[in-house]
Amino acid sequence: MKLIPNELRDDLSLRIDSIKHHMSHRNMDVLIIATTSNLFYTTARVFKGYVYIHKDEKPIWFLIKPDIFDPEEDIVKIRKPENIPASLEQLGREIPKSVGYEFDDLSYSDVERLKALFPDAEAKNGSAPLRLARMVKTPLELAKMREDGIHQSEAYRRITRCYKENMTDLEFQIEIEKILRLEGCLGYVRTSGNLMDINLGSVIAGDNADNPSPFDYTMGGSGIDPSLPEGANGTTLKRGQTVMVDMNGSFNGYQTDMTRVWAVGEIPEFARKAHQCSIDILRECEKIGLPGTPVADLYHKAMEIVEGENLKEYFMGHRQQASFIGHGVGIELNEMPVVTPRSKDYLEENMTIALEPKFVIPGVGAVGVENTYVVTPEGLKSITIFPEGIQEL
Amino acid sequence: MKLIPNELRDDLSLRIDSIKHHMSHRNMDVLIIATTSNLFYTTARVFKGYVYIHKDEKPIWFLIKPDIFDPEEDIVKIRKPENIPASLEQLGREIPKSVGYEFDDLSYSDVERLKALFPDAEAKNGSAPLRLARMVKTPLELAKMREDGIHQSEAYRRITRCYKENMTDLEFQIEIEKILRLEGCLGYVRTSGNLMDINLGSVIAGDNADNPSPFDYTMGGSGIDPSLPEGANGTTLKRGQTVMVDMNGSFNGYQTDMTRVWAVGEIPEFARKAHQCSIDILRECEKIGLPGTPVADLYHKAMEIVEGENLKEYFMGHRQQASFIGHGVGIELNEMPVVTPRSKDYLEENMTIALEPKFVIPGVGAVGVENTYVVTPEGLKSITIFPEGIQEL
Repeated sequence: MKLIPNELRDDLSLRIDSIKHHMSHRNMDVLIIATTSNLFYTTARVFKGYVYIHKDEKPIWFLIKPDIFDPEEDIVKIRKPENIPASLEQLGREIPKSVGYEFDDLSYSDVERLKALFPDAEAKNGSAPLRLARMVKTPLELAKMREDGIHQSEAYRRITRCYKENMTDLEFQIEIEKILRLEGCLGYVRTSGNLMDINLGSVIAGDNADNPSPFDYTMGGSGIDPSLPEGANGTTLKRGQTVMVDMNGSFNGYQTDMTRVWAVGEIPEFARKAHQCSIDILRECEKIGLPGTPVADLYHKAMEIVEGENLKEYFMGHRQQASFIGHGVGIELNEMPVVTPRSKDYLEENMTIALEPKFVIPGVGAVGVENTYVVTPEGLKSITIFPEGIQEL
Repeated sequence: MKLIPNELRDDLSLRIDSIKHHMSHRNMDVLIIATTSNLFYTTARVFKGYVYIHKDEKPIWFLIKPDIFDPEEDIVKIRKPENIPASLEQLGREIPKSVGYEFDDLSYSDVERLKALFPDAEAKNGSAPLRLARMVKTPLELAKMREDGIHQSEAYRRITRCYKENMTDLEFQIEIEKILRLEGCLGYVRTSGNLMDINLGSVIAGDNADNPSPFDYTMGGSGIDPSLPEGANGTTLKRGQTVMVDMNGSFNGYQTDMTRVWAVGEIPEFARKAHQCSIDILRECEKIGLPGTPVADLYHKAMEIVEGENLKEYFMGHRQQASFIGHGVGIELNEMPVVTPRSKDYLEENMTIALEPKFVIPGVGAVGVENTYVVTPEGLKSITIFPEGIQEL
């Protein structure tokens, strides 16, 4: 059975070539992949096993389970990783002199177990080439993310109807979760790194926006239990306050990240002004976000506008402020690059970046807009097309 | 502000004492904790930072964010982990000679970063003492898990009403997710290890039960997208087939694990017989599951009953069979011990174990029951009290 249609096979080759390019800069003979995100990136599926990428040869899929077969792929069935060296010998492959492992993504024990397979090889950080390759999306990845954006917008279009008077932020979130799931959302957020726990996203209403959270998301919220201290805390949606919706956009292994704001009745002019400032920041960033632009410039441009409007003390939080205004997005919610003032990265064509300049206005709640963008020669193009103004509940 | 009420403080002391006991067996001076599961276990909260446990002294909380304060805890504000050694010096604490890190739970890079703080100390696997301590629950942990069991049962009670004719397994799952969330489910499953991706659980109907999955859960299902190949696949619920519901029971940082089966109309007698066999296995295991019993005995007892009923080829899957029939459960869905034939563990009082002897019957679907149990001197006591028979839709 042919698992992979031709157009996907060509697209996977682009990804492998990009990984190999970043491996060559690091003198890495071989890269071994074990995590779901990178298995999915390199094979468009998830299996229990390993993808073995040699700098000059076709990747081998070392498969533990389930049984799959494709005559066009080099698939080798193994029982455990310790079988890999003997398999390589049988295939006539040389034992590598340097091997990259997913240092940033795989547990210390898992990496040590893999390192023991090649005791004489130099161990290198294989997360870096993978992260750099994944930062710039291929045509099929972009198509998937555009599809996500359409589904996420379609779900967001039904959010206003979820509202009932006197409902809590959590009840509102649960209705939105259902809408997303019925739209095809997979119900799972892939993230990278420690302390990135999240359920299907964040709905924060009114004063809860100013409750700080330990997690490295832009906004806080205290949650409903100390084991998951973020997001909705069961507060009632109140007249004159906002509800910020930043919910999961994953429908196909990729995801878009989009935030919009709803408000119950009228909110103060000052909050509207801050929301407009967020939109102004996005418009300016869309213009300057050309291939070759330093990522940090997006942050500086945002800060320049925020300072011009005297809104700095509310920007990216109030009691606790985040130090970034955006991030790469794709298979994982938090990919490279991160939009910080100290970023050393440059925008490249076909990067996908979520920008989320947000404000927390005490007594009102969070305001601001988040879109997911593709970097193009004409600037940043949003793939989360949905009205940006504050919508009334 | 006093963050921790006295009864919780006493309970946390029991946990720290148990960790210290397992540290002492490994000659570990200090254990450093960084993952959410173990932060929550040792402090009953989640923050960005570290818990530093010296074998003879009171734990120190090295806190990055958010700002919290409790006069009865040793809380030290830091900016980054590299501040820890200087803080220890200021506190008059000695630099440890051996340090445990969460080798099995933290990324290779994160562990290496922490190891660099104590370049002269011997690095040890700190995951082991934590896992062993967490295996046996404290009184407050048991109380939380009993609470979970009540909530999960309360949600399961409403499952039959979710059904509408000709709905898909996924539509059924989405309704169950909403019921769970409205009951207080946090919407997030903490798991341990690589390849344990999951959304809110598993609903598998009819022939989809026999679709193998790469993940290390007992049951398979192909899912609706290759990026998350497990569980519901969008199949219509059909007359004469079963729907197995194994959905999230996390309401307070702990969780219970419970599976029940529904069927559309009448199902073949053979499937009913297999379901009854699962119940018989549970009844026998409840009896023999005394403190001191080898965990493997539970597996052997199950297999003895299964072989007596000639059901081995359907047990724990059909095309692909799982090699365990249960697992510890608590903060994470997959804790110690694992109920395999080769387990070297012994049951201890106040362990919490989910037992899930299940069968996949071709043409019908999955059958079987899963309960979460507490090990008591009278045997296993279920905390997921809910009718075990197949319920009609």
